Amino acid sequence: MNHLLVPKGFSFTGVACGIAKKPGKLDLGVIYSHVPAPAAAVFTVNKVKAAPILFSMGTLKKGVVQVVIANSGNANACTGKQGMADSRETASLIAEGLRIKQEHVVVASTGVIGVPLPMGRVRSGIKKVIATISTGPQHLAYFSQAIMTTDTKSKVFSVQELIDGKEVTITGIAKGSGMIHPNMATMLAFILTDACIAPNVLRASLKASVDKSFHLLTVDGDTSTNDMVILVANGQAENSMIRSGKGAQLFQRHLDKVCIELAKMIARDGEGAHKYVEIRVKGAKDFCTAKAVAMAIGKSSLVKTALYGNDPNWGRIIAAVGYSGVEITPEKIDIFFKSGKGSLQVCKRGMDTGFDEEKARKIMNHKELHIVVNLHLGKAEATGFTCDLTEGYIDINASYRT
Amino acid sequence: MNHLLVPKGFSFTGVACGIAKKPGKLDLGVIYSHVPAPAAAVFTVNKVKAAPILFSMGTLKKGVVQVVIANSGNANACTGKQGMADSRETASLIAEGLRIKQEHVVVASTGVIGVPLPMGRVRSGIKKVIATISTGPQHLAYFSQAIMTTDTKSKVFSVQELIDGKEVTITGIAKGSGMIHPNMATMLAFILTDACIAPNVLRASLKASVDKSFHLLTVDGDTSTNDMVILVANGQAENSMIRSGKGAQLFQRHLDKVCIELAKMIARDGEGAHKYVEIRVKGAKDFCTAKAVAMAIGKSSLVKTALYGNDPNWGRIIAAVGYSGVEITPEKIDIFFKSGKGSLQVCKRGMDTGFDEEKARKIMNHKELHIVVNLHLGKAEATGFTCDLTEGYIDINASYRT
Repeated sequence: MNHLLVPKGFSFTGVACGIAKKPGKLDLGVIYSHVPAPAAAVFTVNKVKAAPILFSMGTLKKGVVQVVIANSGNANACTGKQGMADSRETASLIAEGLRIKQEHVVVASTGVIGVPLPMGRVRSGIKKVIATISTGPQHLAYFSQAIMTTDTKSKVFSVQELIDGKEVTITGIAKGSGMIHPNMATMLAFILTDACIAPNVLRASLKASVDKSFHLLTVDGDTSTNDMVILVANGQAENSMIRSGKGAQLFQRHLDKVCIELAKMIARDGEGAHKYVEIRVKGAKDFCTAKAVAMAIGKSSLVKTALYGNDPNWGRIIAAVGYSGVEITPEKIDIFFKSGKGSLQVCKRGMDTGFDEEKARKIMNHKELHIVVNLHLGKAEATGFTCDLTEGYIDINASYRT
Repeated sequence: MNHLLVPKGFSFTGVACGIAKKPGKLDLGVIYSHVPAPAAAVFTVNKVKAAPILFSMGTLKKGVVQVVIANSGNANACTGKQGMADSRETASLIAEGLRIKQEHVVVASTGVIGVPLPMGRVRSGIKKVIATISTGPQHLAYFSQAIMTTDTKSKVFSVQELIDGKEVTITGIAKGSGMIHPNMATMLAFILTDACIAPNVLRASLKASVDKSFHLLTVDGDTSTNDMVILVANGQAENSMIRSGKGAQLFQRHLDKVCIELAKMIARDGEGAHKYVEIRVKGAKDFCTAKAVAMAIGKSSLVKTALYGNDPNWGRIIAAVGYSGVEITPEKIDIFFKSGKGSLQVCKRGMDTGFDEEKARKIMNHKELHIVVNLHLGKAEATGFTCDLTEGYIDINASYRT
């Protein structure tokens, strides 16, 4: 985790209230903006949407957020009318406690599917939240811990930059690739900034950044019922409103950096992962096809097990390129492996380079591996973020919920 | 394996010639029809197609086949012009040896990608093949063994039926879900019949059967560069030609049975599989959407690890339904687990049924598990064939090629 920078005008907390089964585990957290703030969000495309997703989609329609309340240990998904009532009550209680409008609350949940939220615990948790909410990096850290499930590390990344002569901070907090009592490897990301920015620019910026980061992230190819990325901009940096031009570009660049770093942190902490893998697809006709190729490779169980075994089996990679749905010319494809231990071309124009297997294995035997695929069809590129597939993934996900 | 029935007018063999690295392993096989026969085929949709696929697509354009020559141990994929020349030479040598036309030869390969075929071994293998080719079930068995890679069992299924007063046999031979030196889990299926059938009916029948069988099969979601299903009908049963109507329906029904049984055999023998899993999706608007839902569930690593762990985690199943791309109503979905140990509804109208966890685990702890998902949106259904995901899959696929 880099140095925790807290954007102006945000408070946080994280408390333990027994929703997660592990005693003492922080499992309820709140982000509080001192003023109602324009916000943008990207929600799961899964047709089965958890109650908090449906509730928060309502809040985002109006586009103003002041509080995010998030719990781990229970996804409140597939819980019917009671689930919706529980999300609504959660929002109502925190709004009342913090004297804000209920319509400015975002609710997020992650954990077991199909089990009703233990509302008694949530109610007492909300009291604790209200009593402990505070500014400063320590409470930001509490929040980041409260949303963890099988994550082994909390995930926070910040950037700070002068915009319009004012210091603007963007801080992202994410969780992903884990579950306490196994369910969906829900991805949640909360990005906060004190920038003053026009709502339409905010929405466009978030969409653009998510396309370059979280939408290029895959651990196991399963899309959760609870995925959510939200960006809240409370304007407390007091820069003049970013509407377009250079300010918007600068903001975009920094938002990209936060989202990409969070996506990388999630891939690094993938369930059972032994190595972080970046898949750079170059020479594509356009970004979309580059992305499709990167994601096909990143989702392939055969590729991911070979990476785990340090097996330079590029045949599996080119086969994934071939079934990605993208028009390619096999005879043009080059494939390289790169890491801190060196760089090696293993496939040239669709054929084996006669490379040194021992050298390839040495390069692959590294915590951070880069695969570069050049399609030689154009100038566009995309980089996907993933990890290897190990027995650890099976162990985590085959275990009983109870 | 059921009793091996050999359609009239077909001979077989399988020999060891050292293409596969395991000494003595049968690795080159031939199917020989005593007369040139109309044939239909379905080839991989992977854009990276192995040389034997490209060669055999040429043969199938003319639609007449007399010999299938298949090797394991080397896929002859990503081998460039040399690979095409090697497939052509293989076809030429076997055609010469058996005094048939080269344009009536189908070549199939499965094994390591990116390594040139050891043609010296193939040439001496072809001599052995020509010397040993013979009718009868024993030689059919040799062929079925020659195409195995990490398959733990050979896969043959036959049906016999009176059509037009004549005994007609359909015999299918398949391999899948395995590799010796890990590559793609190539699926090959050769289906032979002595039925006399019009070429257009033959093609339509194969397409219809493949849609109900191999296209509903998933082990790890990776599509090979070498996948091929071929149906050869040599007419030696001497029935009057099947052109339409009842005869065609009867043939279709029996061909369906052969293809479905072979698909089930491949799923049962999935790499590292502990249990065979059938996913029946009912109540869909049409077959295509039912299939899409079944395949999304069957491809989900999270679902497959839960099945391995006997974890009745239906949340992962409904989440897969939700991201299948099919329009569904979560509040209508029912989910059941069934096996030889009983049957249990775990999800009703999108919510938990409060089922007995212990009972669910008992039902799941069985070699053959059925998942039934009812979408309650229509009357169509589809059944997918898969297996669980275990450490065995990782072990097999993470190991070095060499």
